[in-house]
Amino acid sequence: MRDSKEARAMGRASKREDIAEAAFQQFHARGFNATGINDITKAAGVPKGSFYNHFSSKEESALEALSRYADSLRFDMLTAPGSPPLDRLRAHFEFLSRDVLDNGFVRGCLVGNFGAEVADHSEEIRSAAKRGFDGWAERLRQLLTEAQEAGDLKDSLDAETTALFILSAWEGALIAARVDKSAAPVEAFFRTVFEVVLR
Amino acid sequence: MRDSKEARAMGRASKREDIAEAAFQQFHARGFNATGINDITKAAGVPKGSFYNHFSSKEESALEALSRYADSLRFDMLTAPGSPPLDRLRAHFEFLSRDVLDNGFVRGCLVGNFGAEVADHSEEIRSAAKRGFDGWAERLRQLLTEAQEAGDLKDSLDAETTALFILSAWEGALIAARVDKSAAPVEAFFRTVFEVVLR
Repeated sequence: MRDSKEARAMGRASKREDIAEAAFQQFHARGFNATGINDITKAAGVPKGSFYNHFSSKEESALEALSRYADSLRFDMLTAPGSPPLDRLRAHFEFLSRDVLDNGFVRGCLVGNFGAEVADHSEEIRSAAKRGFDGWAERLRQLLTEAQEAGDLKDSLDAETTALFILSAWEGALIAARVDKSAAPVEAFFRTVFEVVLR
Repeated sequence: MRDSKEARAMGRASKREDIAEAAFQQFHARGFNATGINDITKAAGVPKGSFYNHFSSKEESALEALSRYADSLRFDMLTAPGSPPLDRLRAHFEFLSRDVLDNGFVRGCLVGNFGAEVADHSEEIRSAAKRGFDGWAERLRQLLTEAQEAGDLKDSLDAETTALFILSAWEGALIAARVDKSAAPVEAFFRTVFEVVLR
């Protein structure tokens, strides 16, 4: 009896995981409004009705998608010990750039995509995207401050302003790369941020 | 007979204009996928069926929306005679920033929005957005070159790279402003572009 209850709970957790992961992938590939519940359950290989056993709404699954996406961004690279702050910053953005450069310039950043498509229309999704950007900007600010303290970065830069600017510029570079279907906007980001702004 | 034919043609042109303008406004406010033909015809005050008398598809009306949007961006400010190039650049971005700052941080840039939402899925819309970005980047490049020739901007900057970077950074700043519901990302854009990148 107990075993079958545990098996059912595990099956339920595994089905939830499949739906959550499929929702994340579908939202990232198609956007929020173009993704139907049907697309999610089909990609997860589960019956359509089962979506609502695990999520109260498409919006709720989008909030979880944002959290899954954030977990994939390797923010730990920004604080990894052993290399100078600005090298870590560059390595982090080189890691982020791989997704767009290696996949034919599609998808971009899920937070920025939801920002462009959904932020005006869902306060919950906007708040979650804001938390994502705020957390990222704060990590960047800390890294820039560390670089200033190490004498690797000019003190005249305001670390908070520059962190927010770099984050925004990255989001824009991803959109321009998708529009241009080329690496040029990402290359312009690296060249200008690292050779002009942070020089 | 001829008069009534002319009146019909004028009525037809005026209805087309109402639909095209409503489509532009709806796409800008709601995004591409969240805008239904019904939203457009309702906003235009015309019967739903009349949409297809003037446009073959929602996509076709989106292409015209991009063109209407581009016409509203006052690119002429970048080449207006009488003031130094970098002053014109700042005035142009101050003009662009008004739409987002004065309207509660919504809507953003239609080209960037379509880039984030539709570029991966419609080659026609992606191409039109690319033409929009390319034309804008070329105008920015010319202005930066002019500033370099006037001795107002360091020669070490690559004008083409910097133009593309500024355009991308602006697109990202608009998205971050909508997510943050604040002017901070736009302020970070002005401060970093004009006081660091172009200094």
